Amino acid sequence: MSLSIKVADDGPGIGEVPGFRASGVHCDVRCTGNPRLDLALIFSEKPAVAAGVFTTNDVKAAPVRFDQRILDGGENFHAIVANSGNANACTGEQGMCDTEAMAAQAAQLLGVEAAQVFVCSTGRIGRALPMDKISNGINGAVKALAATKEQSLNAAWAILTSDTRPKAVTATFEVDGKAVTVSGIGKGAGMIEPNMATMLAFVATDALVSKKSLQAALSDANAESFNAITVDGDMSTNDTVLVLANGESGVNVEDAATGAGQAFRSALKAVCQKLAEKIVGDGERVTKFVTIKVEGAPDDAAAQRVARAVGNSLLVKTSWYGNDPNWGRVLDAAGYARVGLVEAKLDMHYDDIPVISAGTPLHDNLPQWKLAVAKKRFSITLNLNLGSGAFMLHSADLSEGYVDFNKSE
Amino acid sequence: MSLSIKVADDGPGIGEVPGFRASGVHCDVRCTGNPRLDLALIFSEKPAVAAGVFTTNDVKAAPVRFDQRILDGGENFHAIVANSGNANACTGEQGMCDTEAMAAQAAQLLGVEAAQVFVCSTGRIGRALPMDKISNGINGAVKALAATKEQSLNAAWAILTSDTRPKAVTATFEVDGKAVTVSGIGKGAGMIEPNMATMLAFVATDALVSKKSLQAALSDANAESFNAITVDGDMSTNDTVLVLANGESGVNVEDAATGAGQAFRSALKAVCQKLAEKIVGDGERVTKFVTIKVEGAPDDAAAQRVARAVGNSLLVKTSWYGNDPNWGRVLDAAGYARVGLVEAKLDMHYDDIPVISAGTPLHDNLPQWKLAVAKKRFSITLNLNLGSGAFMLHSADLSEGYVDFNKSE
Repeated sequence: MSLSIKVADDGPGIGEVPGFRASGVHCDVRCTGNPRLDLALIFSEKPAVAAGVFTTNDVKAAPVRFDQRILDGGENFHAIVANSGNANACTGEQGMCDTEAMAAQAAQLLGVEAAQVFVCSTGRIGRALPMDKISNGINGAVKALAATKEQSLNAAWAILTSDTRPKAVTATFEVDGKAVTVSGIGKGAGMIEPNMATMLAFVATDALVSKKSLQAALSDANAESFNAITVDGDMSTNDTVLVLANGESGVNVEDAATGAGQAFRSALKAVCQKLAEKIVGDGERVTKFVTIKVEGAPDDAAAQRVARAVGNSLLVKTSWYGNDPNWGRVLDAAGYARVGLVEAKLDMHYDDIPVISAGTPLHDNLPQWKLAVAKKRFSITLNLNLGSGAFMLHSADLSEGYVDFNKSE
Repeated sequence: MSLSIKVADDGPGIGEVPGFRASGVHCDVRCTGNPRLDLALIFSEKPAVAAGVFTTNDVKAAPVRFDQRILDGGENFHAIVANSGNANACTGEQGMCDTEAMAAQAAQLLGVEAAQVFVCSTGRIGRALPMDKISNGINGAVKALAATKEQSLNAAWAILTSDTRPKAVTATFEVDGKAVTVSGIGKGAGMIEPNMATMLAFVATDALVSKKSLQAALSDANAESFNAITVDGDMSTNDTVLVLANGESGVNVEDAATGAGQAFRSALKAVCQKLAEKIVGDGERVTKFVTIKVEGAPDDAAAQRVARAVGNSLLVKTSWYGNDPNWGRVLDAAGYARVGLVEAKLDMHYDDIPVISAGTPLHDNLPQWKLAVAKKRFSITLNLNLGSGAFMLHSADLSEGYVDFNKSE
């Protein structure tokens, strides 16, 4: 049995998943007076199971360490509170005190335990949170909680930093007439690389599943979504993906071998992949979305190394920005991944246009190469013809705007 | 016995080392009519021993493979012929034919064997060499060979691509009244990363040494010079360092334990280090020269991983460009090297100004941080306080000019 899954940008928002509510408010975390939304809250009335994946950076922000601790130690969770504008990273003992205070305040107002409230922060590293403002924000966010599209969208806006637009995706499917919803929001923009990004993503679902099975499903989905994107090769201190599942639909998706279980995993993966693509597409001053498909590598890990070498090469990324079909730079980057690439065996395509065949560049195709790389979205396929390893990476160009944007904060 | 070594930018040129001659000519490799010099020749009248280090990229240009082959197979060498403007990389079998033809022509005109002539090419990847022009260039270069400063400088100019200035360094020392000269030229500019760079460096010396001992000395010098720099993290298909030693001085430097042997190794390392620093300082559209010193790492390899993570981070490099003392990005990059960094143990300095002490940022020093990173040259020291591993890397900022320069060729 294969169930039909509907994936949409305009489906039910994260606060509209049955049993959930959400909100996004302004509390001036940046202390600039800019009225942008900067604190989000997601709340499940019933206890929910949770799963998470986190940055593997040695330097982890206080909220990451807090979330890992409560996720490891608990079975039931109720909420996620997240602020943008300040990462609460490299803030010493004060950072953990502030994170715990955020969880405690939200928990008290929501009538739950502090160890049932995840905390996320994203933004500038190394500055203490303005806790008076955050505290006002949490009060406001609890009051604003609603099962509406408006507050769902507010939550999506409130977690953004240098992103230019909110990112929300919802997948739905039906099992025996019962609807299951998987709805997520995300943010990215810079520091988007291996093992996630300066990124946050939160997913709410009313599927019925155990914590263990949910974690396995998330880890699988993550490998082919948030772990398969790069903007600038920098990995942040704060990357976090959290999923809450409250069982409200009554549809049991525990077993990956059942139709419902399969559909849930596909829906979760689709939500994560769409959010990941939106993150790359909205990378800092990005003008191109480029998919790098590496095939025929000795193994999947080797394919990934090649894809990342290409997707993070400054010379490759700047050539994309300039609409220059500079396949030589692609080949050079693939070569320094050092997976044993044999030039004479390599095939390369821009979209479906042959570029290199068995190591020989097909210069007659130059006009078509130029058309392909001038597009806002195109793919590069590298077949190493050495084995069956494969990996697909979504990357972006590097523009003068990126440098201008990041030269100071 | 410790011998005094003199290192100078304006010492004897590479063609003025006793027994050597050099030249640099224009032959229009780029086929643009631009009268810039683009073919260099270095010639030792006597047979010389040689040593080389080469790119470790899986994709090696034809001249790199040729040079590795003749270096492995021979004992005596006479010349290096090098063109800029075209890398002769990813050019298939034609590429190797062209390289062999360059060696054969130069050898015939010089009265030596083709297997005694190294060939180097640097420039755009994936285009066949214009062999008629190259052939004219080799004729002209052989005629122009001279033991003069002018032709030495011409050779230094002729190997440049996007560099803005020639790079030459000479070290001299005396042993029992006999002078020994070690003189080198180099080029870099882009693709400057691990295990060398889009770089070429040629060193001529009249020291008397065996091939084996010379190779060991070069490998040591290389580790702390050309392998300790980064501009954009890209490693090229053509990186090559070659040393020719013709013994003309009569000073035996074979044994590293003797005063002469020590002095020679110091002189060779000094020449390589000065050339490496000039390469970073003349990186594409670079405005800052930043030295990253990592200390107290678990071991030297871990220190190197941390230094490269920091030195290649786009977010760190753009902040340097913007004079922004964004230590948070430095710490973030150090963390994703994943060597087991413990935030609470870390000390960091800009030059000699404390930034982080035992994990705590010293915000009161902000005005001094700003002054330090606004300089054209400054250092960042990271002490992990975990062990005795250390590594020093020279890096550069990333400017809008770099993107503009590289967006198309």
